[in-house]
Amino acid sequence: MTYCVGLLLHDGLVMISDTRTNAGVDDIATFRKLHIFETPEERVLAIASAGNLSLTQTVLDYLMEGLPNRSTGESETLMKTTTMFSAAQLVGRAIREVHRTEGPSLEQHDVHFDIALLLGGQIKGGRPRLFMIYAAGNFIEASGDTPFLQIGEHKYGKPILDRAIRYDTDLMDGLKIGLISMDGTMRSNLAVGPPLDCLVVRRDTYRTELAHRITEDDPYFLDLRRRWGEALTAAHRSFPKPPYGTSA
Amino acid sequence: MTYCVGLLLHDGLVMISDTRTNAGVDDIATFRKLHIFETPEERVLAIASAGNLSLTQTVLDYLMEGLPNRSTGESETLMKTTTMFSAAQLVGRAIREVHRTEGPSLEQHDVHFDIALLLGGQIKGGRPRLFMIYAAGNFIEASGDTPFLQIGEHKYGKPILDRAIRYDTDLMDGLKIGLISMDGTMRSNLAVGPPLDCLVVRRDTYRTELAHRITEDDPYFLDLRRRWGEALTAAHRSFPKPPYGTSA
Repeated sequence: MTYCVGLLLHDGLVMISDTRTNAGVDDIATFRKLHIFETPEERVLAIASAGNLSLTQTVLDYLMEGLPNRSTGESETLMKTTTMFSAAQLVGRAIREVHRTEGPSLEQHDVHFDIALLLGGQIKGGRPRLFMIYAAGNFIEASGDTPFLQIGEHKYGKPILDRAIRYDTDLMDGLKIGLISMDGTMRSNLAVGPPLDCLVVRRDTYRTELAHRITEDDPYFLDLRRRWGEALTAAHRSFPKPPYGTSA
Repeated sequence: MTYCVGLLLHDGLVMISDTRTNAGVDDIATFRKLHIFETPEERVLAIASAGNLSLTQTVLDYLMEGLPNRSTGESETLMKTTTMFSAAQLVGRAIREVHRTEGPSLEQHDVHFDIALLLGGQIKGGRPRLFMIYAAGNFIEASGDTPFLQIGEHKYGKPILDRAIRYDTDLMDGLKIGLISMDGTMRSNLAVGPPLDCLVVRRDTYRTELAHRITEDDPYFLDLRRRWGEALTAAHRSFPKPPYGTSA
């Protein structure tokens, strides 16, 4: 399993991913799922991936090494795309290429073609954008109304995002809330686990403002988990008890 | 969709269910999913149901009107069972009987045999018990280590239960936390909706202490939602921001 979340805020972009992969509960490993593509002063793009690891890694290889474009004959890479929209299209085409080459064999082995990606970033000349790209290569984009997108095990961590994330949420507050969302997910699903990779890109800077791997014993994250748990407990304890009697 | 939660606490039992059913988002209705079977001074049992409404209603009909027991020739009802264990077995047999009679036709129409039930209660001579009964008629029981069970759309509302529910949680605090869990679920999944039915049974009383339908405009529930939202906001705002820089 996996949990990745991306926030598209007024001030820029936040992306967080876990690093746990599993092929059954008896086969757990750590793999990076948040990949950053940066040319300072020009572009920062990042891809967070969920699904079958062989598929996500192959898609990333195409995006780095180049995907042949049959109409132009050129090899296209993520670092050469000129807009975030064309980057999202390229990622979609890379997924479709992997589906074309790998899909039939996977089907013979009853392996589901399972892949979902978040693509976020900003390229000079354009605004920060955040996309979720599906297994069919189609994609949707985050907007002011819904400024976050999730892939993987998204349900446990969604209520806090629904309540706390607004388009005008401060970037570092967004990161903090995203980490709370991660914490709740990791508590409920052992297949989502540390370390966590996170990225913050401030609008119009075209460089990573923060790129950090948070380990299990990270003092800030431990403190955040403790504070959040204590605050929830203090909150529900302070509320009046239900006043209901036997009336149904 | 549906969300029901049951808590087996030291002091007794709490059960909460929503009432929304849907056959597609364009066909929404309200049906009671929490059914109470009570003989004061002797027994209180309750069943919360999730899944295909025709299946859950048919199972309930068998439990009320009587399920023929082929070995004894007698007709068994929930009100005549002598222990919670035999009640759980009876519910399992009722599900299997419905599967036997309805399953083949449903299969022809590609309708999944989807049913899950929570059975909670106490019968004089025994302790309070809480079971989750699956579509195959088998069941598990809540315990001090895991004092809550959920059916239906369980993920959104689980983190707060994981954090806040202990076996020694007070009954009314349990109801309060259960309502917070319901609130988070209703916010994230429109197929879970009000009114909410809730039940509290105090240990060794053999009667409902509280049985109440909470409507959408219920003042306590509205106040609880508001307080919870405000407390979460105040909490995450009060925490220090992440101290990380560019180091990954």
